[in-house]
Amino acid sequence: MDLNADLAESFGRWELGDDEALLNIVTSANVACGFHAGDPRVIRRACAHAARSGVAVGAQVSYRDLAGFGRRFVDVAPAELTDEVLYQIGALEALARVEGTRVRYVKPHGALYNAIVNHREQAAAVVEAVRRYDPGLAVLGLPGSEWLRQAEQAGLRVLVEAFADRAYTPNGTLVPRSEPHAVLTDPEHIAERCLRLARAEPVEAVDGTGITVAADSICVHGDTPEAITIARRVRQRLTSAGVPLRSPHGREAG
Amino acid sequence: MDLNADLAESFGRWELGDDEALLNIVTSANVACGFHAGDPRVIRRACAHAARSGVAVGAQVSYRDLAGFGRRFVDVAPAELTDEVLYQIGALEALARVEGTRVRYVKPHGALYNAIVNHREQAAAVVEAVRRYDPGLAVLGLPGSEWLRQAEQAGLRVLVEAFADRAYTPNGTLVPRSEPHAVLTDPEHIAERCLRLARAEPVEAVDGTGITVAADSICVHGDTPEAITIARRVRQRLTSAGVPLRSPHGREAG
Amino acid sequence: MDLNADLAESFGRWELGDDEALLNIVTSANVACGFHAGDPRVIRRACAHAARSGVAVGAQVSYRDLAGFGRRFVDVAPAELTDEVLYQIGALEALARVEGTRVRYVKPHGALYNAIVNHREQAAAVVEAVRRYDPGLAVLGLPGSEWLRQAEQAGLRVLVEAFADRAYTPNGTLVPRSEPHAVLTDPEHIAERCLRLARAEPVEAVDGTGITVAADSICVHGDTPEAITIARRVRQRLTSAGVPLRSPHGREAG
Amino acid sequence: MDLNADLAESFGRWELGDDEALLNIVTSANVACGFHAGDPRVIRRACAHAARSGVAVGAQVSYRDLAGFGRRFVDVAPAELTDEVLYQIGALEALARVEGTRVRYVKPHGALYNAIVNHREQAAAVVEAVRRYDPGLAVLGLPGSEWLRQAEQAGLRVLVEAFADRAYTPNGTLVPRSEPHAVLTDPEHIAERCLRLARAEPVEAVDGTGITVAADSICVHGDTPEAITIARRVRQRLTSAGVPLRSPHGREAG
Repeated sequence: MDLNADLAESFGRWELGDDEALLNIVTSANVACGFHAGDPRVIRRACAHAARSGVAVGAQVSYRDLAGFGRRFVDVAPAELTDEVLYQIGALEALARVEGTRVRYVKPHGALYNAIVNHREQAAAVVEAVRRYDPGLAVLGLPGSEWLRQAEQAGLRVLVEAFADRAYTPNGTLVPRSEPHAVLTDPEHIAERCLRLARAEPVEAVDGTGITVAADSICVHGDTPEAITIARRVRQRLTSAGVPLRSPHGREAG
Repeated sequence: MDLNADLAESFGRWELGDDEALLNIVTSANVACGFHAGDPRVIRRACAHAARSGVAVGAQVSYRDLAGFGRRFVDVAPAELTDEVLYQIGALEALARVEGTRVRYVKPHGALYNAIVNHREQAAAVVEAVRRYDPGLAVLGLPGSEWLRQAEQAGLRVLVEAFADRAYTPNGTLVPRSEPHAVLTDPEHIAERCLRLARAEPVEAVDGTGITVAADSICVHGDTPEAITIARRVRQRLTSAGVPLRSPHGREAG
Repeated sequence: MDLNADLAESFGRWELGDDEALLNIVTSANVACGFHAGDPRVIRRACAHAARSGVAVGAQVSYRDLAGFGRRFVDVAPAELTDEVLYQIGALEALARVEGTRVRYVKPHGALYNAIVNHREQAAAVVEAVRRYDPGLAVLGLPGSEWLRQAEQAGLRVLVEAFADRAYTPNGTLVPRSEPHAVLTDPEHIAERCLRLARAEPVEAVDGTGITVAADSICVHGDTPEAITIARRVRQRLTSAGVPLRSPHGREAG
Repeated sequence: MDLNADLAESFGRWELGDDEALLNIVTSANVACGFHAGDPRVIRRACAHAARSGVAVGAQVSYRDLAGFGRRFVDVAPAELTDEVLYQIGALEALARVEGTRVRYVKPHGALYNAIVNHREQAAAVVEAVRRYDPGLAVLGLPGSEWLRQAEQAGLRVLVEAFADRAYTPNGTLVPRSEPHAVLTDPEHIAERCLRLARAEPVEAVDGTGITVAADSICVHGDTPEAITIARRVRQRLTSAGVPLRSPHGREAG
């Protein structure tokens, strides 16, 4: 099983998240590329640590929106979005390469991630960027999304992710954050649940029924000390149960 | 002889320069990388046209300063500057590659260009970025500058440029823009002068004495219709006199 | 009748529009506030000229989007939008006041202008900003829009604008730019049409039927030489026909 | 005695400093204006709290440099700097006014603060902005600086500040941060020292000699929990010793 998390989300004077802690936990690092967060220095540091730890580097591409941390939908023209995604992947790649690693996959961030679940033109724009940049890159996203559907059609390697701390509906979709019980907080419960996810065993949906969530990767968070605690617990639980943790991108795996 | 000019200096709604005209004149294109100008769309268009025309693509890296068009000195820490330059080269490289070409050289822009004539730490920071990114890249700059001196020491290929429309002191340095007669404007005179430069013949310094200016490349401008006229005249004069125009980077030469 | 146009849309090195020409034509200047265009220097220059010419200054507030020139919808939270609009009005006000004038009205720009035709929450957010800043400010917009409806409810002075160069449907709404004949280009025809608008006489809709368009202000453009020609012709036609041109804000009228 | 501190230095998703805690300690708040930090929402919140607490609002104006947090010298042209300072003061004023308070003084931030200790043209540019905006505003800065010297000449009210946690040379200037013992860390020692400052009694310079530091205001910090502890201790010490704490701007004093 792969564990992924967002990294390099500091910017200049502003610090966010504990990259060092996270890079000792996850196997794939979604590295911010400067459009919602991530100055070149913090990006490079994350890449250096990822390279040392055998963690795969992914491009966490975003709308151009520092003020909104990439969390607001922007109705950008698809052709422009393609070029902005290429710009971000390339910028990250340069910093990854000087640290001895490279970009292995792409996971859009925030509002872009959410938009391309359904927005065909923007999903196509991001797929086009990945395909043109390097068809050997994998893409990471939500099962059933336009993003993964189109990426698959374009011949890209598709990785489906599940969320460690999010409740699921009986249909296997995420319970929206605006609804009660959308976010799980108990580390033990979350860790146990991730173990079931990793073993492809059914987990409990928000209504108590059991559902099976297919996942190539589990997404954990690192922007609060509590999140780090949860992420660490998930890793321990999987490891102690004998589930091998490794990025699906081969080369970096330690 | 190589002819170089700045390109991709539009940004979003704002247009600057006539990239298409320039790309039919020059042999090396200093493509803006988004920090002083150049959105991903205009960068990609410039790369596409450069690739089609056999023009070499260079990274015109800058301080992060859209509001000042990179023309104000910024006292950025060297380590940060290195990473910002890497970020810019990588971003450009991605857009160049999808258009079938790649970055061949680096020419800093504006205030950074001027700063690293003397500023050792910032010069070292840019050299470090180029060397770490790809020691096969060439660097373009002013003879006698820290930038070229350190680049040479670092084993990089160094290209010296002369300015088509600038007056020189008897010592071979540029007459500062603040002084009278610093900028030449007569297309015929400029073209003739460039021919002498290309043939390594002496040209007239601002005091009337003759000086020899060694140059691997001549810099022309494209931000006004008059500049385009001059650049075109320079090309015609060199070509009609049998001076071969080609980028010093080989592969793209048409 | 009031004539309004967008101004101060240059930014740093990038020039757009002929502010000086426009300020000799219009009676109300929609001055960009730095979020889609307009650096403090160009804003101040526009205010200085407006003050000298007796042209009323309005705040052309926008989403924070320099790269997109404010032309992309941004799904910004209403409370944030309110504060961003206040920030922009205040910034403009300072530059207007040192030039001896002040902000008289607010006209949102680009995608924000279009969004608040229907988007209730964002319309309310902008109305809230104006009302809290100064309930004596007028607002300028499209008849039938949420923006004007809510502004009126909030007790603000509402000014309806018509577009000199746009075709209308038989219902009095604008023909979308994506449809044929949406934009008029003949200066004589446009000037004649504006005279009819100013006299509250029917004009021809896109299907040939006659419609009456109520307008407190006519919007002209200045971003191309052709636009300036049209704007000048409109002014001449109205003036020569004895229609008084003045801003509806009193004090500045020359 | 006045206590001042920097506030509103968060930006979007990034949080910095504990504004609420600080606003219960200081009597003057240097509110960031969006150029180095401070989005409109966080600025408004700081103003609202300041108004409620009777704390005076000052404009903490900066170079345009979010990525560098305004800590890098930018060689901006003086005329441009004047307009950028006006823009920032105006933006803050609008948000202050809707919360029932207003801008009382100006204290430049970071690299600009340091530059105008000696840089005549930039000092003049900031003075010019304040004088043109409102000659009733006070200015806050370092004794002996160009900034205060020129402000005084321009007829502005000048307030001199001392630093709670910084060591002084025998000449009464700050020991540079690069030198040992430049920064004090013991809350008791600092509080005691501030009491002596407030009583115009001599304090110990870095070499052990006694010096008298004249100060209208003492600057405390709030960007770490330790800084808040120190600031709180300073306030307690002064208050318990009967030194009245109040802003020198009258109206807001609680």
